[in-house]
Amino acid sequence: MIILGLDPSLSCTGWGVIRVEGNRMSHIANGQVPTDAKAPMAARLDHLYAAIAAVIAQHAPDRAACEEIFANKNPKSTIKLAQARGAVIAACGAAGLEVREHAARLVKKAVVGTGGAEKTQVQAMLKVLLPSAHLAGADAADALAVAIADANLG
Amino acid sequence: MIILGLDPSLSCTGWGVIRVEGNRMSHIANGQVPTDAKAPMAARLDHLYAAIAAVIAQHAPDRAACEEIFANKNPKSTIKLAQARGAVIAACGAAGLEVREHAARLVKKAVVGTGGAEKTQVQAMLKVLLPSAHLAGADAADALAVAIADANLG
Repeated sequence: MIILGLDPSLSCTGWGVIRVEGNRMSHIANGQVPTDAKAPMAARLDHLYAAIAAVIAQHAPDRAACEEIFANKNPKSTIKLAQARGAVIAACGAAGLEVREHAARLVKKAVVGTGGAEKTQVQAMLKVLLPSAHLAGADAADALAVAIADANLG
Repeated sequence: MIILGLDPSLSCTGWGVIRVEGNRMSHIANGQVPTDAKAPMAARLDHLYAAIAAVIAQHAPDRAACEEIFANKNPKSTIKLAQARGAVIAACGAAGLEVREHAARLVKKAVVGTGGAEKTQVQAMLKVLLPSAHLAGADAADALAVAIADANLG
């Protein structure tokens, strides 16, 4: 079973692919897709869509997952984030993948054991769970955490 | 100059294509893309993306436009709407189109002459401006109104 974890955002979308065999988990790949803040919205969303479509074509995941989002205090940020998610989730849909959504607390709990874990704890635990992974950055780390959580959540 | 107007939403995205030559405007096509409320989010977003990509491939617009959105009182609705927009705008980006955003009041003003116009007034004015248009529905009408506004706003 190959799982794609996603951490979509307009400025930089993280992704991570893991393999799960029984209760063994291993790292396959991770990366980040930054977009040009000066480019038009349509070009940025197309870039995210195309990059995630390429990741899916290369790694052929069986399922995909991302964190649930909630509207935050800045409505413009919420709209930008949700538009980025729309492009990324559409790319999954084009490959026949559903994208399961998990609450942020459940993701942290699945990786670290507690829902209130800090980002640094999550990244430290990733090194234990996926020792061969060279993390492309914080967004890729978050995406791998989502993939691990998705595996653990069954 | 061919303009694609868009009225994205997750449940049903409207689109309308017009031709503008100098100060003459004519209808080319309009339609609506409903999605299956019972289908997974990724499949619904893929359906919107693919349908708008097909409209663009068929009519080869020079530019595209939609209405600006703001976060409304229901955060879940805002996120769903913005995700649908993300898929639709990404499809435009894939074809090299930018998507200009116009305030709803400006769209109404450009079509009816007043920013506070009712939907029924907008649809009545569409029949005057684009007499040959057979409207696919209210969402397609809104999309044609956006296209007309985009033409008028230069």
